Amino acid sequence: MPDVFLAKGTRDFLPAQMHRRLAVIDRVRAVFTQFGFEPLETPAFERIETLTGKYGEEGQQLIFKILKRGEGGETGGCDQALRYDLTVPLARVVAMNPDLRLPFKRWQIAPVWRADRPAKGRFREFYQCDADIVGAEGPLADAECLAVAAAALTALGFPAYTIRLNDRRVLRAMAAAVGAEDREGPLLVAIDKLDKIGVEGVSAELAARGFDAAQIALVWAILAPQPDNAAALAALTAQLQPRLGDRWPEAEAGIRAIAEVAALAEDLGVPPGRVRIDPTLARGLDYYTGPVFEAVVEEPKVGSFAGGGRYDGLIGMFSGRRIPAVGISLGLERVLAVLDERDRDAPPPTAAQAIVLVWDAARRGPAIAAARSLRAAGITADLFLGDAAFKNQLKYANGRGYPFAVLVGPSEAERGLVAVKDLRSGEQVVLTLDQAADHLRAARAAAAGPLPKPGEAR
Amino acid sequence: MPDVFLAKGTRDFLPAQMHRRLAVIDRVRAVFTQFGFEPLETPAFERIETLTGKYGEEGQQLIFKILKRGEGGETGGCDQALRYDLTVPLARVVAMNPDLRLPFKRWQIAPVWRADRPAKGRFREFYQCDADIVGAEGPLADAECLAVAAAALTALGFPAYTIRLNDRRVLRAMAAAVGAEDREGPLLVAIDKLDKIGVEGVSAELAARGFDAAQIALVWAILAPQPDNAAALAALTAQLQPRLGDRWPEAEAGIRAIAEVAALAEDLGVPPGRVRIDPTLARGLDYYTGPVFEAVVEEPKVGSFAGGGRYDGLIGMFSGRRIPAVGISLGLERVLAVLDERDRDAPPPTAAQAIVLVWDAARRGPAIAAARSLRAAGITADLFLGDAAFKNQLKYANGRGYPFAVLVGPSEAERGLVAVKDLRSGEQVVLTLDQAADHLRAARAAAAGPLPKPGEAR
Repeated sequence: MPDVFLAKGTRDFLPAQMHRRLAVIDRVRAVFTQFGFEPLETPAFERIETLTGKYGEEGQQLIFKILKRGEGGETGGCDQALRYDLTVPLARVVAMNPDLRLPFKRWQIAPVWRADRPAKGRFREFYQCDADIVGAEGPLADAECLAVAAAALTALGFPAYTIRLNDRRVLRAMAAAVGAEDREGPLLVAIDKLDKIGVEGVSAELAARGFDAAQIALVWAILAPQPDNAAALAALTAQLQPRLGDRWPEAEAGIRAIAEVAALAEDLGVPPGRVRIDPTLARGLDYYTGPVFEAVVEEPKVGSFAGGGRYDGLIGMFSGRRIPAVGISLGLERVLAVLDERDRDAPPPTAAQAIVLVWDAARRGPAIAAARSLRAAGITADLFLGDAAFKNQLKYANGRGYPFAVLVGPSEAERGLVAVKDLRSGEQVVLTLDQAADHLRAARAAAAGPLPKPGEAR
Repeated sequence: MPDVFLAKGTRDFLPAQMHRRLAVIDRVRAVFTQFGFEPLETPAFERIETLTGKYGEEGQQLIFKILKRGEGGETGGCDQALRYDLTVPLARVVAMNPDLRLPFKRWQIAPVWRADRPAKGRFREFYQCDADIVGAEGPLADAECLAVAAAALTALGFPAYTIRLNDRRVLRAMAAAVGAEDREGPLLVAIDKLDKIGVEGVSAELAARGFDAAQIALVWAILAPQPDNAAALAALTAQLQPRLGDRWPEAEAGIRAIAEVAALAEDLGVPPGRVRIDPTLARGLDYYTGPVFEAVVEEPKVGSFAGGGRYDGLIGMFSGRRIPAVGISLGLERVLAVLDERDRDAPPPTAAQAIVLVWDAARRGPAIAAARSLRAAGITADLFLGDAAFKNQLKYANGRGYPFAVLVGPSEAERGLVAVKDLRSGEQVVLTLDQAADHLRAARAAAAGPLPKPGEAR
C-alpha cells in the first residue's frame, strides 16, 4: 500500500465519532438558539493584518500562513492566514457592518487552526464553540453568557458544574494592593496555575519573579477561600479598600459587577449555588477587561468546560469606536473526548436504523421496494448495494452496528411481506411494509441516543 | 475607521443568510441520513502529496498551500495545503482505514478552497455537499446516488428537475467510432459546451481541433436527440456497434449500465420520466470511469444543481487495490443563491421568535423572569440586554425582524402578566406566562420557514 498520511496534528472523524459530534453540536446550537443567539459564519482564512497583533507574541507564532498565488504560479509571500479563533473574525465582522443592530448576539461553532506542537489531546485543527454579545455594557449580558453555558452543560448531560466568577479589575486591584502594578502579568500567570501546582508552587513562582515574603503573604490573604459569595465579596472589600486609595473605585466597580452577575445569572435560570465568586480565577487572555468566568465540571472530573469574559477593547481595535462585548466559549472538544471515552465500548452508532438486505439477484426487486417504502415512511433505511452473498451481508450488517436488518426471502417475497430482524436480540418478525415501518418507529422512540434526552441527565 | 477587509474571494454569512444555509444543510443532511449515508469529517488541510496529481494541471494551480512553520518561526517551504474537494480526502480515508466495512456510504457537507480568480458568484471558499458510495460495483449504487439527489432536490423545494445520464464508456466509444481515440479529451471538452454554444459552436470548435467534416457529421449522428430513453439506447447501439469491432463490448457495457441505472433509479423512487439518457453529457473530471449524471432544475431556470458519476480508479491510487466508487455532489451554493434571491424582500429571519423588552430598570426583574420562563417552555426568546430606552428597544425589535415582543409594563408586572405584541400586525394580548408560551408556540407552528415544509413544494 502506498504511504498515505494525515497532515500532522489533524484528525479524521469517522461515522461513529461523527454521530456524537453532530449530536453535541446540534444540542448546543439548540440551546444558543433558545437564548436568542444568531448564527454567523466567517471564512477559514483572513488577511494577515486582521489576525496579527491580537493574540500576543506567542499566539503570533501559531498562525498558519497561506502562500500567495499569482496568476501563473507562486509569487511567494503571504497575505492571508487561517483563523486562530472565532473572536477576532467577529470583531472584524462588527467593524465591517456598521449597520448591524446592537446588541448583536451570535453563536459560531467552527474549526480553528493553530500551528501548535501536536501532543496527546492537542491538535492543529479543533472546533471552537462560541456565544458572544456585542454592544451591551451591563452585567445582564455577562449573566446571559453564564446562563447559556449552564443550559448547554445541562443539555449535554453534565449537570454537576460550578461556574467560577471573577473580574479583571479585581485582579488589577490586587496587583496594586501588593505593590506590584508593574508585574500584574507575572502575578496572574502564577495564580492561574493554582489548580495545578498549589499554594506552595505559586508562592515559589512568585518568589522567583521577585515578589517578597510580605507581598506573597498579602496575596494569599486577599485570595483566602471564603465559605460563600457574600463572604468572598466582603473579604475582597475588606482587603482591598484600605490599600487602594483613589484606585478603589475601579476595584469597587469590579466587585459590584461580579455580585450583580452572580445574582442575575440565578435570575436567568442558573441553579442557586452554582456560581462561585473566586478571586483566584485569572484566565490567560490579555483582552479581558471586566468579569471573567469559567465553568468547571466536577462529575465526571474533567475540569474546565467553558470559559469567557468581557472584552470591551477588542472590537474598537477594528471599528475605531469603543463597542463593549462579552462572550463564552464552550470546550466542545473536551466534551467530545469525555463522550468518546464513555461510549468506547458501546455499539457503534449508525445513521440508519435498518439495512435492507438482498436475498439473491431474483429478489433484488422486493428489497429495493422495501427500502423505498421504509424511507418514504420516514425510517432511515440503508440498502445493501454490494454483490456479497446473503450470509456475508448479514455479517456486514452486524459489524456495522445497524439495530435491524430487513430481509425479503422467497416466502416473504411471495406474500408481499418482509422479515424484520433485531440484530441485537436475534428476534425476527414477519410483517407488511406498513407494519415494519411502525415497528421500526417504535423501536427508535425507545432507543438511547448518544446524548441524554432533553431534561434527562444520566 | 481603520481599513478592515475580508480576504479576497471570501464571504461572511450574516444571520439572515445563515438561517437559510443551516435550513438547507439540515434538510439535505436528513435526506442523506434517510438513505443510510453516514457522516464523515476530514481536516481542512492535507499533506501536499495527497492532493497533487489528482486534479490535472489546472487544478494544481488552484491549490492553496500553507507555509511550514518551524519551532522558532518560518522555515520556509510548504508541506500541506487546503483541500480542494471532498473526494480526494475520502479516498485517503478509505486507504488509511483498511478495516472500514465496504460498501461505505458517506456524506460530507463542508467548505473547500480554491485559489481561483474571484468573480461574480465564484468564491475562493465554498461548500461542497457530497454523498459517495465506496466499495460497490453495480448499477444499484449508481442508482442510489440518483435517488438521493432526487430526494434532496424535492426536499429543498425544487421538484422540477431532470437527471441527465450517460456513461464514460459510451463517450470513449464515440471517440473511437469517429476515429479520434487519441483526441477523446478535446472531443469531450467541446461537447461539454453544447448547452452554452450550441451545435454550430461545438462544430466550429471540433473543426479547429482538426476534426474533419465527416467526423463532425458522425458525432452529430451519434448524438442525435431521441424521443425517449429506449430510443436513445437503441440509437447508440445502432450507431456504435457496426463501427467498433472488438471495442464493442466495452461500449455495450456502458449502454447496459445506463439502461439499468435509469430503471433502478425509478425503482428507488425517482419519479418516472425524470431520468433522461443523454449521450451529450460529458462532465469534466478525468477520473470518471462509468456512468455520469447531472441533475438540472428547469423551474426556476437555474441549470445544473447536482452532478456525479462512477470513479473506479481514484481510490486505488491511494489504497493500492482497486476499490469501486460512485458519488454525487449537490450544488449547495447554487441552491442557496437561488433561495437568497427568492427571499431578498422577505423579512429577515431571526433565531428567536420573541424578544423580551425591559420596560425600565425597576421592571428588569419581571422581564428576566419572563425570558427564563419562556425559554424553559421551549420558546426561543431573546432578552434585551442593552440599556436603551423602551422606545428604542421597540425599534430594535422591529428592525431585527422578531415576530413578537414580550413587554412587562407596570400594570402587567403588578398582575404577574405579560403583554405579547405581534410586531407585524401590531396586535397585543395580555396573558399569563403559560398562556404566552402557548400563544407563541401556536404562532410558530403556523409560520413559514426558509424552506417548504417536508412534502410541500412551493
